[in-house]
Amino acid sequence: MAKLDKLIQDLDAYRVKPMRRFKLAAIDSHVDGGMDKDQAVAGLTACREKLAKLQVKLYAQGTQALLVVFQAMDTAGKDSTIREVFTGINPQGVNVHGFKGPSSIELSHDYLWRIHAHTPERGKIGVFNRSHYEDVLIARVKELVPAAVWRRRYDHINAFEALLHDEGTRIVKFYLHISKDYQKERLQRRLDDPEKHWKFDPNDLVERARWDSYMKAYEEAMMRCSTEVAPWYIVPAETRWFRDLLVAQVLVKMLESMKPAPPKAKFDPSTIVIE
Amino acid sequence: MAKLDKLIQDLDAYRVKPMRRFKLAAIDSHVDGGMDKDQAVAGLTACREKLAKLQVKLYAQGTQALLVVFQAMDTAGKDSTIREVFTGINPQGVNVHGFKGPSSIELSHDYLWRIHAHTPERGKIGVFNRSHYEDVLIARVKELVPAAVWRRRYDHINAFEALLHDEGTRIVKFYLHISKDYQKERLQRRLDDPEKHWKFDPNDLVERARWDSYMKAYEEAMMRCSTEVAPWYIVPAETRWFRDLLVAQVLVKMLESMKPAPPKAKFDPSTIVIE
Repeated sequence: MAKLDKLIQDLDAYRVKPMRRFKLAAIDSHVDGGMDKDQAVAGLTACREKLAKLQVKLYAQGTQALLVVFQAMDTAGKDSTIREVFTGINPQGVNVHGFKGPSSIELSHDYLWRIHAHTPERGKIGVFNRSHYEDVLIARVKELVPAAVWRRRYDHINAFEALLHDEGTRIVKFYLHISKDYQKERLQRRLDDPEKHWKFDPNDLVERARWDSYMKAYEEAMMRCSTEVAPWYIVPAETRWFRDLLVAQVLVKMLESMKPAPPKAKFDPSTIVIE
Repeated sequence: MAKLDKLIQDLDAYRVKPMRRFKLAAIDSHVDGGMDKDQAVAGLTACREKLAKLQVKLYAQGTQALLVVFQAMDTAGKDSTIREVFTGINPQGVNVHGFKGPSSIELSHDYLWRIHAHTPERGKIGVFNRSHYEDVLIARVKELVPAAVWRRRYDHINAFEALLHDEGTRIVKFYLHISKDYQKERLQRRLDDPEKHWKFDPNDLVERARWDSYMKAYEEAMMRCSTEVAPWYIVPAETRWFRDLLVAQVLVKMLESMKPAPPKAKFDPSTIVIE
C-alpha cells in the first residue's frame, strides 16, 4: 500500500496553481501512479466505503454541502467516473445534474441562473456533469458570445463560487485529461461496436476538430478559476482505474476536512415516554 | 429458489385493487414470504444487478421514465428501503426527491405544482420520498384544508398520474406497512441510542397519537388512487430484508415490462472517418 499512501500525500501535485500559466499538452494523460490495477481497485473500494459513511454524517449534520464539478473533452469518461465513484453512496444524499445546451428559458437568464438552481442543498453532495465552465469553453471556442463577454466571466465565476463557499458549500472541480490520440481510439471503439452507437454523435467530430482551441480555453479557465476555495484538479484519465481512484481520494480528503458530524439532540431523551 | 419464484409470481397479491375497500389493520405487516434472510438477500442482490442494467437501457433509450413513490408512517423505513434498493444503480440515472412541509412559495401554488416540477425526465428513474399523497393524508388528518377540498383531490391525482403515464412515465407506488406496536419499538430504539438521536423528533409523537386517523386516510387514498396505470403496493415492512426484496422485485418486473432498448443509430458508421 506504499504506492497508495504516496498518492494520498501527493494529491496536491494534481491541483492547478492559481494564476500560474501551464500547457495541458505538457501534462501526461497516461499515468498509473506506479500502481497496478488490483491495488487501485482495492483503494477505490476503500474510498467508496469512506465516502458512504461521510455522506451519512454530512446528511445528518445538514449544515454543509459539497459540489463536485466534472469537465472534459468527449470520451474522457465523465459519465463512467461519476458512475464508478458515486455508485454505492445512498442516492438520497447525492444529486447528479448533467448540463446540456441551454434551453430557451435558460438562455433568457444570465448563464449562472440555471447553475445556481441546481447547486446542492445543505446536507447533500451535488455532482455537475458539465457546468458553468461551458460558458468560458464552448461559448469561447464557438464564439457564441464576443470575447469581451466571456473574458469577464472568470470574475463572475470566482465570485459565484466564493458565495457558495461562504454559505456552506465546499467545491472541487475535476478536469479529466486525455490526449487527442486517445480520443480517436475511444471514438473509433464507439463506431465499431453497435451496442455503443447510441453514444456516438457525428457532431462530436466537429468539436474534435477544434481540439487546440478547447485546450487553450481549458488552460485559461483553470488557471483563472482554480482558487483556494474552489480548486481545479487535472486528472490523468487514460488509465481509467487510476482516474477513478484519484478522484475518489480527493473527495475523501475534502469530506474528511469538512468534519461532518451529527448534531446534538435538542431534547432530553430521559423525559420522553412513547405511548 | 422456489420461494423466490413463488414471490415473483405472487406480486399482484400485494397490489391494491381499485375501488375495493380494505382495512390496513387486517393486513399482516410482519411477513417473510417463507424465506430466510440469506435467500432474500441473494434475491435482492440479483434484483440490484438487473435494475442497474435496465437503468442503462432506459437512459440510452431516452423516451420513457419511471416514477417510484414511497409513503409510510414514520420509522417504517422509507429512507432505508430507498438506500437498499437504489444504492448500486448509477446515480446519474436516479433522482431521489424528499418532499417536506411545503415552503411559502410552494403553498402559493396548487399542491401538485411542486410535485410536477420534480417528476423524472425521460430516460430517468425518479424516486419520491413522500409525495402529493401527503395532500390527502396529513392535510386530511390535521385538517389543513376542509373536507370538501381534500375529497376532490383523489380525482386530481388520478388525472395527474394518467397524464404522466400517457406522456411516457410509468408509475408505481409503495406503502411500507407497519403496526403501531412496531413503531413504538423503533422510536424507543432511536431514543435509546445517542447515535440515532438526530433522527428523533418529539413532534413524531404527535403524529403517532393520530395513528388511527392516518390508517383511515391511507386506506381511502390507496383504494381511490390504485389504478391500472399507477398501482399502489402494500409492502409488509417489519421484516426489512423481505420489504427490500419485494420492492425490488416489483421494480424489476415493471422495468422489464417497459422493454427499454437503446435507439438505432441515425448515421451510417461505415461512412465516418475520425481524423
